[in-house]
Amino acid sequence: MTQLSEAFRTNLTLSLRHAGIVLKKNYSPAAELAQKIAKKLAKHGIAVTIDGFSDDLDVLIVVGGDGTLLHVADQAARYSVPVLGINMGYLGFLTERTEEEAFAAVDELIAGAVTIENRMMLKASLNKDGKTGNSRYALNDVVINKGTTDRVLELSTRADQEYITTYKADGLIFSTPTGSTAYNLSAGGPLVYPGVATMLVTPICPFMLGSRPMLLPAHSRLRTYLEAGRSYKAQIIVDGQPVWDMDEKDTLEIEAAKHCLRLIISPDRDYFAILRNKLHWGMR
Amino acid sequence: MTQLSEAFRTNLTLSLRHAGIVLKKNYSPAAELAQKIAKKLAKHGIAVTIDGFSDDLDVLIVVGGDGTLLHVADQAARYSVPVLGINMGYLGFLTERTEEEAFAAVDELIAGAVTIENRMMLKASLNKDGKTGNSRYALNDVVINKGTTDRVLELSTRADQEYITTYKADGLIFSTPTGSTAYNLSAGGPLVYPGVATMLVTPICPFMLGSRPMLLPAHSRLRTYLEAGRSYKAQIIVDGQPVWDMDEKDTLEIEAAKHCLRLIISPDRDYFAILRNKLHWGMR
Amino acid sequence: MTQLSEAFRTNLTLSLRHAGIVLKKNYSPAAELAQKIAKKLAKHGIAVTIDGFSDDLDVLIVVGGDGTLLHVADQAARYSVPVLGINMGYLGFLTERTEEEAFAAVDELIAGAVTIENRMMLKASLNKDGKTGNSRYALNDVVINKGTTDRVLELSTRADQEYITTYKADGLIFSTPTGSTAYNLSAGGPLVYPGVATMLVTPICPFMLGSRPMLLPAHSRLRTYLEAGRSYKAQIIVDGQPVWDMDEKDTLEIEAAKHCLRLIISPDRDYFAILRNKLHWGMR
Amino acid sequence: MTQLSEAFRTNLTLSLRHAGIVLKKNYSPAAELAQKIAKKLAKHGIAVTIDGFSDDLDVLIVVGGDGTLLHVADQAARYSVPVLGINMGYLGFLTERTEEEAFAAVDELIAGAVTIENRMMLKASLNKDGKTGNSRYALNDVVINKGTTDRVLELSTRADQEYITTYKADGLIFSTPTGSTAYNLSAGGPLVYPGVATMLVTPICPFMLGSRPMLLPAHSRLRTYLEAGRSYKAQIIVDGQPVWDMDEKDTLEIEAAKHCLRLIISPDRDYFAILRNKLHWGMR
Repeated sequence: MTQLSEAFRTNLTLSLRHAGIVLKKNYSPAAELAQKIAKKLAKHGIAVTIDGFSDDLDVLIVVGGDGTLLHVADQAARYSVPVLGINMGYLGFLTERTEEEAFAAVDELIAGAVTIENRMMLKASLNKDGKTGNSRYALNDVVINKGTTDRVLELSTRADQEYITTYKADGLIFSTPTGSTAYNLSAGGPLVYPGVATMLVTPICPFMLGSRPMLLPAHSRLRTYLEAGRSYKAQIIVDGQPVWDMDEKDTLEIEAAKHCLRLIISPDRDYFAILRNKLHWGMR
Repeated sequence: MTQLSEAFRTNLTLSLRHAGIVLKKNYSPAAELAQKIAKKLAKHGIAVTIDGFSDDLDVLIVVGGDGTLLHVADQAARYSVPVLGINMGYLGFLTERTEEEAFAAVDELIAGAVTIENRMMLKASLNKDGKTGNSRYALNDVVINKGTTDRVLELSTRADQEYITTYKADGLIFSTPTGSTAYNLSAGGPLVYPGVATMLVTPICPFMLGSRPMLLPAHSRLRTYLEAGRSYKAQIIVDGQPVWDMDEKDTLEIEAAKHCLRLIISPDRDYFAILRNKLHWGMR
Repeated sequence: MTQLSEAFRTNLTLSLRHAGIVLKKNYSPAAELAQKIAKKLAKHGIAVTIDGFSDDLDVLIVVGGDGTLLHVADQAARYSVPVLGINMGYLGFLTERTEEEAFAAVDELIAGAVTIENRMMLKASLNKDGKTGNSRYALNDVVINKGTTDRVLELSTRADQEYITTYKADGLIFSTPTGSTAYNLSAGGPLVYPGVATMLVTPICPFMLGSRPMLLPAHSRLRTYLEAGRSYKAQIIVDGQPVWDMDEKDTLEIEAAKHCLRLIISPDRDYFAILRNKLHWGMR
Repeated sequence: MTQLSEAFRTNLTLSLRHAGIVLKKNYSPAAELAQKIAKKLAKHGIAVTIDGFSDDLDVLIVVGGDGTLLHVADQAARYSVPVLGINMGYLGFLTERTEEEAFAAVDELIAGAVTIENRMMLKASLNKDGKTGNSRYALNDVVINKGTTDRVLELSTRADQEYITTYKADGLIFSTPTGSTAYNLSAGGPLVYPGVATMLVTPICPFMLGSRPMLLPAHSRLRTYLEAGRSYKAQIIVDGQPVWDMDEKDTLEIEAAKHCLRLIISPDRDYFAILRNKLHWGMR
């Protein structure tokens, strides 16, 4: 069963025996908050693992920012571990609870009744010499970037068997709805509500004036390769981490991952309030 | 059952007893082609109605351009009549067959096996003084426009019960994926593959720099009204036709229509080829 | 001598005998401040005219907002009357002084040494049936707008003798650098420092994907007319005021006005600080 | 005397004793055409240097494309050598003459009466540890690019003594009007007629939604440095060539170069025709 057949928002009853906590590195307030949360969980007889992942976790608590959550999204999704995000600084799109709301949120976990959103993830793999290597998973985006190359990339791109176009651009962003507020937004792409079943293809500084961000069905299988004869290299970046070099004969393959990230959302969560706050709407 | 539970692309077997033909007005080549098509259908014992609609039609053939098809989309959708589009001039997004391909397409209709796409439509209604009037249906878009008012509109907008923002803009476009290549594109919105279950909200010349086109789930119920105290009027335009004046106390309501337009597509239809052609991709 | 040969920013010594004050309508705090300023000027033996213009004014004080200043810019420029802007609400691009700074600014006027910026203005005239009517002057912009017409305008446009293109769009904005932060910005145009000798041509919702805002030399003479055979009307709006209807055979002519607006600027004026404040730079 | 006091378009009478020819590398049709042109010039007693530059050249003929011309623009500008561009492939913005027009253009050179445009150039220098190194000159643009860094650059930027903003972006483009049709256009900047005395500052994929391309007076002195404490490196690219690495303590300085490129233009040159052709205006 793929993610696309699951409902986007569902209620869940947790039975908490083992909780994981991951935290922002080199930031002592995060470490302090994590210790307090661990103590509280221990009081209720719940085992706690700090900064380590194990496949029997019943919940994963992220103390940091959206970046910290992105780092663990892949593992959490693979093992279907629901994730609670607590932000230590600026309000996050993914880490919705503030430091002040942290203990109330932990109380909810202990009580067990939570609401989750099944956030679509992308699965990326690079086919080199006809062989497809390991896959990587992205909650936000998979980006092909020209790096230090001094010319535009020419990226021949298909959806399933259909040829879309050859993008001439500095790069190409494949984004989930969750990632629509990240790099996609800087490159001129639209805002997409996380529940829409789609993937975005957004060119970076396109050389063609008619190029526009495009939204494809979530079940599309995208393939893109560098046009031959140009002897340049590109870089592939998954959720902000450079993971592969891309050469002329390589094909990047993108599709929806089988597993979603199960993101625990706040009972009074207001998606548009976060947008208004982050994007300064209502002001000019 | 709403359109959202239907598959987007399905095969259909027509049993043709009564065919309708509508044609571009005041354009004799369209009238000539329509006569030839009618003759051919009559030979096969199929009744033909030209330039009239009846609810027992088994198919509706549009001879003209996308504009001609837009005019009949509402009726065809209400009565579930599949539509075949033949363009008499420029290649259309909706009228895919050329004049040359017309007779082969009619042969397909007679043979009976066709492929259709269930194109989402929008239902718009205007609530005046607490009373909701007649609904109008759009295959492309429903637009609120400031008309000749010399100031920006302030449009307080909600999705279901959630407040999105108060758009300060010359207007607001509510678009289907089908309409993403129409006015939405001129206003800076993205391209959306027709099968994605979404509706687009795109501001026209927004006064707020952070405003961006937004994509919401297809099952959203959108409501928007003019902020009070400004004593201006706006105009509501459905698929290019002005239909209502909008005053301060009125609320425009938009949701997905119950019925889709059943658009008969070409067996070798290539959506991206049409895009590449219309948007001059591959060229700078 | 045209404005283009004048320096953009110059020092001036006023000899104040007669000051004018114009104020925002129906807004009592503006009226109160105007009375206080008038009293102060009278004490120094300076004649004051409130809400009336005469061609012997030595200075014009605007108490209100940018809109109030736009209304009097034409007359002030024609008679070379320097203008001081005091904003009563939000910080203005043109009305730089706050209510608190008003009296210090009036002291400067009385002392006599001021710095002015020579702000370029546009002269617009409409040629009907081969006859050119009265001219109108714009500090911000001259806009051709489709009004309630339900189709795009086709505007054949020339700079001097050279054909630029036929814009297919909802309208066309001709803007000064001063006006670059007004409607031009909403339509996707760039920010232009007021001292740059240029005029901007920015299409509104262009139907052509390759259309972009264009900057032409300040000494260009622009001419634009509606392509024949479409029987539509457009509206011409000068600094926010509808002034003419435009028919098929009419030609709109735009060039730099002979006279600049002499805008008195603050000694510690910081153009970019105003931009940062108004456009929320530094925040995401 | 700086370039800004020179007229943009002027007539010139050449007295041709020594002509230089530079050509596109590894492209035999360019070499063949260069040989024919050299032969013709020699017949008229004019010395010819192929693929070498000397400071006594009376004209420089570029046989290739815009890229070939960009490579020699710096030297040609320094020594005030007028440049004639002949394109061997696609129509160029700088290389206006086609292969077919080449000999007629050479005849004009021999006859002596030519029209030139004084194209503004940018002078870039990098201040490292308080010392300013060699300058580089750009006809199109000077670009700061994040290269392979995985986070946005934060570029604190000033015009003369005034702080503009700290751009958070993938990079920053400083462009001449000539360069407005190059990288600036891909990054969303406007078209600027080459005669406008301005320089453009265009952010690449800005993280701040309110960021817009900005046009400053041609006599501005721009300075930008990376905000401290981020330990990233950036790359500086001049007319497409990577020239410097930029570290945290470095300041990039940009101003108009003292010398313009003297570009020989065609007597029937039509700037807008080139735009229409290259940008596919008139089509959707």
